Amino acid sequence: MQPKEVIFMDYSLLWLDWKPVDSLPEYTKRIIGLPATRQGKAALRELISGLKAMGSEPEQCGSREPGPAIRLTECRGNDEKVTIRRRGESMEIAGSGRGLLYGVFHLLRHLTLGEAYPVWESSPVYPIRMLDHWDNADGSIERGYAGRSFFFYGGRPVYSERIRDYARLMASCGLNGCCINNVNVHENALKLLTGSYKRELKRISSCLGEYGVSLWISVSFSSPIELGGLPTADPLDPEVRQWWKDTCRQLFSSIPNLAGFLVKADSEGRPGPHSYNRSQAEGANMLADAVSPFGGKILWRCFVYNCTQDWRDTKTDRARAQCDHFAPLDGQFRDNVILQIKNGPVDFQIREPVSPLLGHLEHTNSMVEFQITQEYTGQQQHVCYLLPMFREVLDFHLGHRPRQDTVAESISAVCAVSNTGDNYNWTGHDLAGANLFGFGLLSWDPSANPTEIAREWSILSFGRDRVITETVTDILMKSRSIYEKYSVPLGIGWMCVPGNHYGPSPDGYEYDRWGTYHKATHTEIGVERGPGGTGFTQQYSPGLAAMYASVENCPEELLLFFHRLPYDYRMKDGRTLLQRIYDDHFEGFEESLAMSDAWDALAGRLDPDVFARVQERFRMQLHSAAQWRDVINSWLYRLTLIPDEKGRKIYL
Amino acid sequence: MQPKEVIFMDYSLLWLDWKPVDSLPEYTKRIIGLPATRQGKAALRELISGLKAMGSEPEQCGSREPGPAIRLTECRGNDEKVTIRRRGESMEIAGSGRGLLYGVFHLLRHLTLGEAYPVWESSPVYPIRMLDHWDNADGSIERGYAGRSFFFYGGRPVYSERIRDYARLMASCGLNGCCINNVNVHENALKLLTGSYKRELKRISSCLGEYGVSLWISVSFSSPIELGGLPTADPLDPEVRQWWKDTCRQLFSSIPNLAGFLVKADSEGRPGPHSYNRSQAEGANMLADAVSPFGGKILWRCFVYNCTQDWRDTKTDRARAQCDHFAPLDGQFRDNVILQIKNGPVDFQIREPVSPLLGHLEHTNSMVEFQITQEYTGQQQHVCYLLPMFREVLDFHLGHRPRQDTVAESISAVCAVSNTGDNYNWTGHDLAGANLFGFGLLSWDPSANPTEIAREWSILSFGRDRVITETVTDILMKSRSIYEKYSVPLGIGWMCVPGNHYGPSPDGYEYDRWGTYHKATHTEIGVERGPGGTGFTQQYSPGLAAMYASVENCPEELLLFFHRLPYDYRMKDGRTLLQRIYDDHFEGFEESLAMSDAWDALAGRLDPDVFARVQERFRMQLHSAAQWRDVINSWLYRLTLIPDEKGRKIYL
Repeated sequence: MQPKEVIFMDYSLLWLDWKPVDSLPEYTKRIIGLPATRQGKAALRELISGLKAMGSEPEQCGSREPGPAIRLTECRGNDEKVTIRRRGESMEIAGSGRGLLYGVFHLLRHLTLGEAYPVWESSPVYPIRMLDHWDNADGSIERGYAGRSFFFYGGRPVYSERIRDYARLMASCGLNGCCINNVNVHENALKLLTGSYKRELKRISSCLGEYGVSLWISVSFSSPIELGGLPTADPLDPEVRQWWKDTCRQLFSSIPNLAGFLVKADSEGRPGPHSYNRSQAEGANMLADAVSPFGGKILWRCFVYNCTQDWRDTKTDRARAQCDHFAPLDGQFRDNVILQIKNGPVDFQIREPVSPLLGHLEHTNSMVEFQITQEYTGQQQHVCYLLPMFREVLDFHLGHRPRQDTVAESISAVCAVSNTGDNYNWTGHDLAGANLFGFGLLSWDPSANPTEIAREWSILSFGRDRVITETVTDILMKSRSIYEKYSVPLGIGWMCVPGNHYGPSPDGYEYDRWGTYHKATHTEIGVERGPGGTGFTQQYSPGLAAMYASVENCPEELLLFFHRLPYDYRMKDGRTLLQRIYDDHFEGFEESLAMSDAWDALAGRLDPDVFARVQERFRMQLHSAAQWRDVINSWLYRLTLIPDEKGRKIYL
Repeated sequence: MQPKEVIFMDYSLLWLDWKPVDSLPEYTKRIIGLPATRQGKAALRELISGLKAMGSEPEQCGSREPGPAIRLTECRGNDEKVTIRRRGESMEIAGSGRGLLYGVFHLLRHLTLGEAYPVWESSPVYPIRMLDHWDNADGSIERGYAGRSFFFYGGRPVYSERIRDYARLMASCGLNGCCINNVNVHENALKLLTGSYKRELKRISSCLGEYGVSLWISVSFSSPIELGGLPTADPLDPEVRQWWKDTCRQLFSSIPNLAGFLVKADSEGRPGPHSYNRSQAEGANMLADAVSPFGGKILWRCFVYNCTQDWRDTKTDRARAQCDHFAPLDGQFRDNVILQIKNGPVDFQIREPVSPLLGHLEHTNSMVEFQITQEYTGQQQHVCYLLPMFREVLDFHLGHRPRQDTVAESISAVCAVSNTGDNYNWTGHDLAGANLFGFGLLSWDPSANPTEIAREWSILSFGRDRVITETVTDILMKSRSIYEKYSVPLGIGWMCVPGNHYGPSPDGYEYDRWGTYHKATHTEIGVERGPGGTGFTQQYSPGLAAMYASVENCPEELLLFFHRLPYDYRMKDGRTLLQRIYDDHFEGFEESLAMSDAWDALAGRLDPDVFARVQERFRMQLHSAAQWRDVINSWLYRLTLIPDEKGRKIYL
């Protein structure tokens, strides 16, 4: 069934809805330079329309005309370097077409922030900075909390102006790649590979490309069977290899801006090389060889674990799986394969240690996968600004080398699972826009400051009212810690409702097949992952392994990730483990109430629609935070019958 | 979208697949009598085809011909009385057309059982003996475990030969009513009321009617809004009342065999009179007045409770809801209203006390609703023969009157939620056919013996091999107790996975809104429902109230339904409560293994397809029973840290 007409709802332009700026510098009145590339031309258009929205009426001038101006100098090549220089009262933006785009957006953003001469010389650290969409062909979005897909409708990809604006948003914060379909590739999404939707893909790809954004698609490893009619998808089978080569030749030749494939193989029921007793490297390399002639790359997910574990089995530790599967394969992957590794060893929980696999790939390209769609972090009903967590991960010292050993220095690309959908505000919760914008800035410069990003995002989104900026920045910066306090305690993870992952269910995953257990009794809680337990700590470099293995030295926020402990274990501040958890849960709720009150105090300062939408989300958050507080506390109280020292209400 | 063609899968005729019978009596060779009614003619057809299948070649003769014969004597009227007399070597079946049907099926069944002269004089105790289908217009079945609907396909009702065979199956075991659509009335099912599917309904109704089965439909209380375009569904609003009258006039005049409506109002989000501050009686009576001119009846469900309860609220007890809502209304309902009351006060758990509401309706018609679709009793992956439970309920003395105080004597109709679907064997698990057949026999005669029913069903289904009969009867008779032992302990209920209700999740409903809690701590478990607790016990007659309120006198199998108790509470046999639960769970699994072995021993005796299907179900049952055993035991062990006295394996 094919829709007659695709209607997408009205939508906001988010931070690209430039606001008037008082006393713009004189140079904003004149623009010199006529870029030749599509990206350069887009940069010029953005500059003109942005300045107009800010209150200037820029003229396009010849290079000899007098007076301050913005000069766009388009350089050859296709690199992403950008330079913004001040020359007297004028500014020059120099770069390739893509560089000009980044430069123009930088200038516009910083003019909005009140900087008259935002000089800048920058190159992105990573050549691939992308968003992964878990959009299905039917328009639904797996783990999407902001409406339906704007890439797919009624079983097929569709082009709309919204995609153009999405590309603009990406470019404006430094992102350059976009995988448009879910890693779980089903039904019509399979056919993206074989050109059934070539026309639509080409149109989308071209539009993204104008803003320097490459198109990626997720493909199924068993496509030779599903689409090619072959009896096998064995990566060493000559027919299979030929099928992939032929298929890639046709696809890449018709979609010029296609960068490659994202593959979830041998993971949660997806097919993969293990079905044929081949290694992950053999699987990935076969695809890498097929895309290589066209400059394509393979992003190969490392989310491989036993998802049909028996909960009675205490030998298997899901946290170990990534390293166990991939560390021995270091050096066996082609140069155009990048291993995509979730930031933690399990799955996007509110608190996990950094994935130890990131330290084991000396001779293999790797990238970190973050998740800005808030699957386990409040599903965009709770505010949870994730940039501080991402910085923790990027700054983490893996300890395998004497220097340049941080995650940021070890990887060659970054991506995040997108939090967007067709809601008016793109992200469901207006404040979740900060994660989208912030991930972009961090992907360009992994040393970017989350507080500064929050402040900038607030000003771009809500204007320069200092009360708003301070309030929003404060809410954002506190939000992750608050969510963590009232939700899952001390890194133990997985106390959420099975399936939808929203709200508390302390035993929800306890007797299930997902390898995520706490095994709480009335005296103890947690799984021991030190050398006396599952040995997971030994996957880290020696210093880290020793630190995590030691109950005393383990960072307290990860205590229950690594250790099984009695409830009366004494924390560093003298409180018992149990009392710490009670305290966190009461405090977390109180702090979310304070955030909500702080937002309420912005009444009258903000656009009433934005104000009301976020107010409604805070109402939802408070309801859910109370449920988290009371369920976790009651559950622990029923187990232990140890009351809260401060006598606060715990329900029997 | 309308399907071009409806294809139903092949299906078995179950116990109507008459098998050859050795040494049939001489009278089976001749049939005298030509019934005039549709039902009488159907009886004659069934008799001829049944006897043929058994090995006779009956001739239809004039009444004067010599020799033994079966004489069908059709009486006037439409009652359901049937008489089978022996006259010398001949047999006479006398009754109305419907009576003849019941008589013919009785004769055929008993010939198969080996009785040469099954004389019988019987009338059904209840005029309404029906099955409720929770079939949706889209063909799905709520809580259906045997495939898709055979009443609905692609959004509309459809007629097929399977419905005729279904009517034959119903008549053959004494059932006379069938509500074809789900009590949760949505989408196209709404329109059954307004004649959109008049043609299809008429066809279905006519076919059912030929076998003495009345058609019922479920309707939405807010139909005047949804279908009539009125602004309200207030039962006292004149326009609303007129709309229902007009609608009923049109519907009943076009569907002659329509008996009335089943209504789920003010229940789990369904609209009802409470929305307009009207009583349940005002709502039901308004509909009763609308159907009354056409002899119609209203079956009004009493499943009214607060399904958005806060788990922190310990005042509200869902078990009380039926009595609290309906007992005060006794005597206020019209004569053509029948209150439909689930057998227990909560919701079809494997063990509940009898609903106390059944004792409070001196001046109101009531019916018991059983559930033969195994929502909470193993979903037709586990064998669970429910007739012993149904007999317990029917035999239960409510204690409000000195005599005739059993449930069976207090009600005026019975129904069960059907366990059928379009699977080849109708019920998913072949052995679940015994619940369908058995409910029919029990609905005709509430004093029927479950063991005898099981034996009869086995012979009709699998032939007269005595080993099969004994094995199947033994399995069926033990099955409920076995399921109870390894699943939810001692009447506490609800330890199933939320939503789908299959498999264990001890805390699954604990912090949710459904009013179903155990509040287990490491020392105690259960909700106290005595006078010192929620007071639910006081809804029973004084003797029962005192018995249930007393921990010592409360039947042990219901101990945790009524009481909150410490794990070291001593049961009558000296075991602790906890040890009793451990023992039950280990024994329940072992006993299910023994059932499975007993089935395996039938290899070679049974039709190989039947044998293999049931064997596969036992495999599923054992897997699930082990999960129940281990999860319940582990959960209790983790709470209490008290080991099993016999040292059997409990997983941490």
